[in-house]
Amino acid sequence: MASDEFDWTLRVYIEDTDAGGIVYHANYLCYLERARTEWLRSKGFEQKTLSQQQGVQFVVHKLSLEYKMPAYLDDALDLKLKLIGLRKTGMQLQQTLMRAGQILLTAQVELACVASNGRPKAIPTQLFACMQDAMAEYEHK
Amino acid sequence: MASDEFDWTLRVYIEDTDAGGIVYHANYLCYLERARTEWLRSKGFEQKTLSQQQGVQFVVHKLSLEYKMPAYLDDALDLKLKLIGLRKTGMQLQQTLMRAGQILLTAQVELACVASNGRPKAIPTQLFACMQDAMAEYEHK
Amino acid sequence: MASDEFDWTLRVYIEDTDAGGIVYHANYLCYLERARTEWLRSKGFEQKTLSQQQGVQFVVHKLSLEYKMPAYLDDALDLKLKLIGLRKTGMQLQQTLMRAGQILLTAQVELACVASNGRPKAIPTQLFACMQDAMAEYEHK
Amino acid sequence: MASDEFDWTLRVYIEDTDAGGIVYHANYLCYLERARTEWLRSKGFEQKTLSQQQGVQFVVHKLSLEYKMPAYLDDALDLKLKLIGLRKTGMQLQQTLMRAGQILLTAQVELACVASNGRPKAIPTQLFACMQDAMAEYEHK
Repeated sequence: MASDEFDWTLRVYIEDTDAGGIVYHANYLCYLERARTEWLRSKGFEQKTLSQQQGVQFVVHKLSLEYKMPAYLDDALDLKLKLIGLRKTGMQLQQTLMRAGQILLTAQVELACVASNGRPKAIPTQLFACMQDAMAEYEHK
Repeated sequence: MASDEFDWTLRVYIEDTDAGGIVYHANYLCYLERARTEWLRSKGFEQKTLSQQQGVQFVVHKLSLEYKMPAYLDDALDLKLKLIGLRKTGMQLQQTLMRAGQILLTAQVELACVASNGRPKAIPTQLFACMQDAMAEYEHK
Repeated sequence: MASDEFDWTLRVYIEDTDAGGIVYHANYLCYLERARTEWLRSKGFEQKTLSQQQGVQFVVHKLSLEYKMPAYLDDALDLKLKLIGLRKTGMQLQQTLMRAGQILLTAQVELACVASNGRPKAIPTQLFACMQDAMAEYEHK
Repeated sequence: MASDEFDWTLRVYIEDTDAGGIVYHANYLCYLERARTEWLRSKGFEQKTLSQQQGVQFVVHKLSLEYKMPAYLDDALDLKLKLIGLRKTGMQLQQTLMRAGQILLTAQVELACVASNGRPKAIPTQLFACMQDAMAEYEHK
């Protein structure tokens, strides 16, 4: 059965690095969010539209990271993403950053769906249904 | 006569540097804006308040930079700011970044005052009067 | 007995915010590192010196964050830091970000001391002794 | 005759935006540098290799920007780049950022080729020859 694992690639630019010669540790969070954004886009959902038309946005609620190996300037990186938890007002993702098959970083990310006032709000119906399908694939693997 | 030159200091952190071992060139623009923000705050104006109560924000319209010497990790830097031009919907500033009396960067910044729709809007009266005083000081020096 | 909790304050600038109107979630990691840098500096250790003279740098190895409330533009924030674990080649910190007595974010950070080739290396003797004192204070509280 | 204009596209992510709801003005400099990096890569030159094997890097020396229209979250942007000046230790570029045929930002960028000590150094021979070809195309258009 098809997995819901989403793959995306990106390139390391000098803006991402620090004086230690490696990617600055906070910048991986940007990489992770870019991948989440592209994952949603690949399913037909854009964050600007969700915000403007449904009045919701996703914010990071909890984050757990393990940095295993550094990434360097000019690296081409692979990002893998799996939905591993879903509830009415949030979801949990497992994300992995790799270079040439080697794991550089693993992350568990808990997202909350919130209204523009910051209060929890139900994930819009169509998106929730789409996420349920993704969960079903994950659970049946 | 008192000059309107505003002085502010900041510290370089590792987030600001790049793999070349120096401050990444885009990050100086953040430094310049922090100084502009503190200059306005020193005169009693906060950007969040201007935006929420007056419906205006300042955006950079033109920018001209000369990078003379790099800044490094842990440097304590001095930022100097002078208002050198003022019109109904904008202002022009001269900003200089220094380390121990040595000029690292000079910038000419043209700010536009815009409404939330991005259209030019007159600088709020009280702020404009304050800027006029600053200009008078500059012109009489 | 004096606690080793280190306090530091910072201001939120527009560079730190995102289109959601709040501080972008990755930027809190920069705030946390600035506080760690100032904590080390308050004890007499600068990262550039550690790198150039002792050949070591600290890198984030594990990170666990809980985002409780968002920070906004112009907020003045308090950062609290406590050393809660120490070993030859690394340390563990508890960091808390607050605004007006309210907790916005809590973080557990595991730092590794590495050589310029990225391999684990013992924390320099003088710094290690200083960290041991900090731990003793923590354990006796 | 073929133009040397280089085209590249990028996507705006939430990390790039600010509380004004638009791309933060400093982040365009990152976009411009990504495009310069990809332009060099398209000609067979990587910055990490130039730095490690030839001991040179390019730093921004002068920069002149005009912000005409803001970019927004989720925008797909086009970057155009033209080499317009070349000397032994530097080059001048014209860069334009567009969305759907509309110019958002224009930039004139002067790059200096420097050694690891920051002193000017001649552009490596092979790269210089490649840039001369690009200039010839530009001048003959």
